[in-house]
Amino acid sequence: MVMDKGLSIREAEDMVSISGDFVDFVKFGFGTSVITKSLKEKIAVYRQANIRPYLGGTLFEVFIIRGMYNEFRKLIDDLGLDLVEISDGTMPMAHSDKCKYINEMSKQVTVISEVGSKLADVEIPNDKWIAMMKAELDAGSWKVIAEARESGNIGIYKSDHSANTDLIDGITHNVKNDNVIWEAPIKSQQAWFIKLLGANVNLGNIAPTEVISLETLRLGLRGDTFFQFLPKK
Amino acid sequence: MVMDKGLSIREAEDMVSISGDFVDFVKFGFGTSVITKSLKEKIAVYRQANIRPYLGGTLFEVFIIRGMYNEFRKLIDDLGLDLVEISDGTMPMAHSDKCKYINEMSKQVTVISEVGSKLADVEIPNDKWIAMMKAELDAGSWKVIAEARESGNIGIYKSDHSANTDLIDGITHNVKNDNVIWEAPIKSQQAWFIKLLGANVNLGNIAPTEVISLETLRLGLRGDTFFQFLPKK
Amino acid sequence: MVMDKGLSIREAEDMVSISGDFVDFVKFGFGTSVITKSLKEKIAVYRQANIRPYLGGTLFEVFIIRGMYNEFRKLIDDLGLDLVEISDGTMPMAHSDKCKYINEMSKQVTVISEVGSKLADVEIPNDKWIAMMKAELDAGSWKVIAEARESGNIGIYKSDHSANTDLIDGITHNVKNDNVIWEAPIKSQQAWFIKLLGANVNLGNIAPTEVISLETLRLGLRGDTFFQFLPKK
Repeated sequence: MVMDKGLSIREAEDMVSISGDFVDFVKFGFGTSVITKSLKEKIAVYRQANIRPYLGGTLFEVFIIRGMYNEFRKLIDDLGLDLVEISDGTMPMAHSDKCKYINEMSKQVTVISEVGSKLADVEIPNDKWIAMMKAELDAGSWKVIAEARESGNIGIYKSDHSANTDLIDGITHNVKNDNVIWEAPIKSQQAWFIKLLGANVNLGNIAPTEVISLETLRLGLRGDTFFQFLPKK
Repeated sequence: MVMDKGLSIREAEDMVSISGDFVDFVKFGFGTSVITKSLKEKIAVYRQANIRPYLGGTLFEVFIIRGMYNEFRKLIDDLGLDLVEISDGTMPMAHSDKCKYINEMSKQVTVISEVGSKLADVEIPNDKWIAMMKAELDAGSWKVIAEARESGNIGIYKSDHSANTDLIDGITHNVKNDNVIWEAPIKSQQAWFIKLLGANVNLGNIAPTEVISLETLRLGLRGDTFFQFLPKK
Repeated sequence: MVMDKGLSIREAEDMVSISGDFVDFVKFGFGTSVITKSLKEKIAVYRQANIRPYLGGTLFEVFIIRGMYNEFRKLIDDLGLDLVEISDGTMPMAHSDKCKYINEMSKQVTVISEVGSKLADVEIPNDKWIAMMKAELDAGSWKVIAEARESGNIGIYKSDHSANTDLIDGITHNVKNDNVIWEAPIKSQQAWFIKLLGANVNLGNIAPTEVISLETLRLGLRGDTFFQFLPKK
């Protein structure tokens, strides 16, 4: 999952031309989609490359906090999107409400939901993280995203960008691996997850310019994972 | 104010196509304009988008230290620019000389002048900063820029990129807000100024790829300023 | 020497259009070339601009550790490249073997070889660095590269990105300056080498977007080297 936070149409075409085969989803980061000219044209560029674009979860929260849930659902329809992200990383939200949104919207489109706060001072206990992920999958989420922001220093990471291993351990032992997308904007984080969970681990918040580099990590074509994927003697 | 430090023509077109509506000025960073092929063509790209391009202040100093003030003025004319930046961040310059340059050039074009040193070991006392800004506005500067470099760790910021609040406080209480452009290359700095001075604060040294992200901060469409711009109940 | 780690064809054209005059070589970083669509087309873009492209040394090691030296040589031929990098930064390799590869391949194409480990915990004593560089030049290397990775915090730099001055001193006093390419991905490192060894020092691992900025450093058109290149009075 790549984060597009303001590519021009031509830059989106460029990304697709070189990296399209390695990308499943493109997230229009936070509320950037609202001020993107020719958004429908950009959506078409991604679709033609078999990439599913969707609106960043913060935009969902922007609508919810203004009491505009129906307007949000209409926007998804107007844009012809088939995928939506539901998150509560910025605003407080009862988890039962979040699950209700997930449940309702999962009848309209595919839902990805995100667990974790964007705020450094909001600590969610590990068992609550896991319980939330399970409840959201039960409510209708296709996959759950583990929060790290674009900066990669929160949620599943510590402030120095290293992995919060206790939390990640808890998740991997309690939630099906294929159901989790790990935000991993920094190379060391990507390599760490590839070593832990294998070449095909779901990673998110990848910068458009880093897709090819990440793919070399997955294939053992870069120093960081060079010894991971050698043929068995 | 966006810093262009070497975009190709097509990249400039890309930036304008997606971000042009949110940009007032483009600065050709330091002396990059001298070695930019097709500079006039790039200037035309920006002008067509109603963006005013200008030469970075370091280039002014490059000419001054070689005794080539007249050649600099001729260059501005040759390029058909209507905006110039006058700074003394790199070379020592009597402030009376700087004000004379400002005064003279303000009869030729619009002048922006920059206050602050690019050197970490040059400390300008706060009251001197403010006095310089006022004197330069009096001498003919349209706006004054508060220095931070591309790296955002000097002048109005501390070495850890956090705001030098005493200095900024002094400036905001003594210089008209609309007359100041704050260099703010880092997201946390942009959010900090938007919270302090509002959505329309003048910010500078924005990377071309960050214009859209910055605009979402101004509109409350990103976590960092999510609660700043909610409609009053 | 610029590192291309996944530019699209159009982005390569953009880089060439604005920065081509200042670039001698483009390295396809680590194993990115293997998964680059239209690689031959990209090679043609660089060649037309009189830039010599080559495959990153890690890819050489990817082939060697799989016992596929001949396949590597065939790949170079198939791509029509005239330059190759031989390194041992990721895998252990007897230095006599490395020199044999250099010697053999230097009969096929121009060889650049790289000295230094990509691993933070592998310390090569300074005298061994110098001896290796000399031996590789003797074996047929046209130039030797001093390792720093894309991150610039290893080999000739300390973990805080500052220069490992003892090692660099040893190299400059024992190896002909023109025979060394210093990896210098960070601006402060580029400025440091320009001040030490002059405007024309060979620098490597330059990001495509930083070529113009680096050139202004070489010309004294940026604060960091402003006083280096003033005309003598």
